[in-house]
Amino acid sequence: MRVETSELDPAIAKRLKRDADGLVCAVVQQRGTNEVLMVAWMDDEALHRTLTTRRGTYWSRSRQDYWVKGETSGHVQQVHEVRLDCDGDTLLVVVDQEGAACHTGDHTCFDADRLL
Amino acid sequence: MRVETSELDPAIAKRLKRDADGLVCAVVQQRGTNEVLMVAWMDDEALHRTLTTRRGTYWSRSRQDYWVKGETSGHVQQVHEVRLDCDGDTLLVVVDQEGAACHTGDHTCFDADRLL
Repeated sequence: MRVETSELDPAIAKRLKRDADGLVCAVVQQRGTNEVLMVAWMDDEALHRTLTTRRGTYWSRSRQDYWVKGETSGHVQQVHEVRLDCDGDTLLVVVDQEGAACHTGDHTCFDADRLL
Repeated sequence: MRVETSELDPAIAKRLKRDADGLVCAVVQQRGTNEVLMVAWMDDEALHRTLTTRRGTYWSRSRQDYWVKGETSGHVQQVHEVRLDCDGDTLLVVVDQEGAACHTGDHTCFDADRLL
């Protein structure tokens, strides 16, 4: 269930430009290789949990709940770095990914479908 | 102005899962270094133009119009690869970026604000 009032640092919260659903986009990148592993969404509380626990934590738009990456699969993300973009609406989350990042078993979510 | 009927390959169009505004997220990555340069948005026509012209072309949500990256700044993107993610709602666009990717003059849009 959505946390209404997050303990996210107010100095960070005021720099976020959230969409109509209160979310910012999170691009998740492997530390070292810089591969883009996946893209997910965060509200203030998901960002707060990610920053404080250093486990990649997101808001599921389909299930309308928080999820910790790897909670069921064991494919957890150890978070090393989080950056906010110039517009304040996208986060870059640099992680060490345990196992596959994609729920299909692929290494990244971008492995299966090349358009060009 | 928004193109209502794009010539995007129907085999690609049917794999896209667009948001309520008809858009998918595009993560733009530098070829070779794998740096994440920026994140922008594409509708079917922006994707069609990107695939056919090989210049990074996006939909501006604020200006409600197409924009070719570098059209005014000269900081164009030569597109080498486009991948669709497992959910069909995010594109990974691999480019050679000419000059700075960020409108602030920074190399990437994620250079200025580190949260962790």
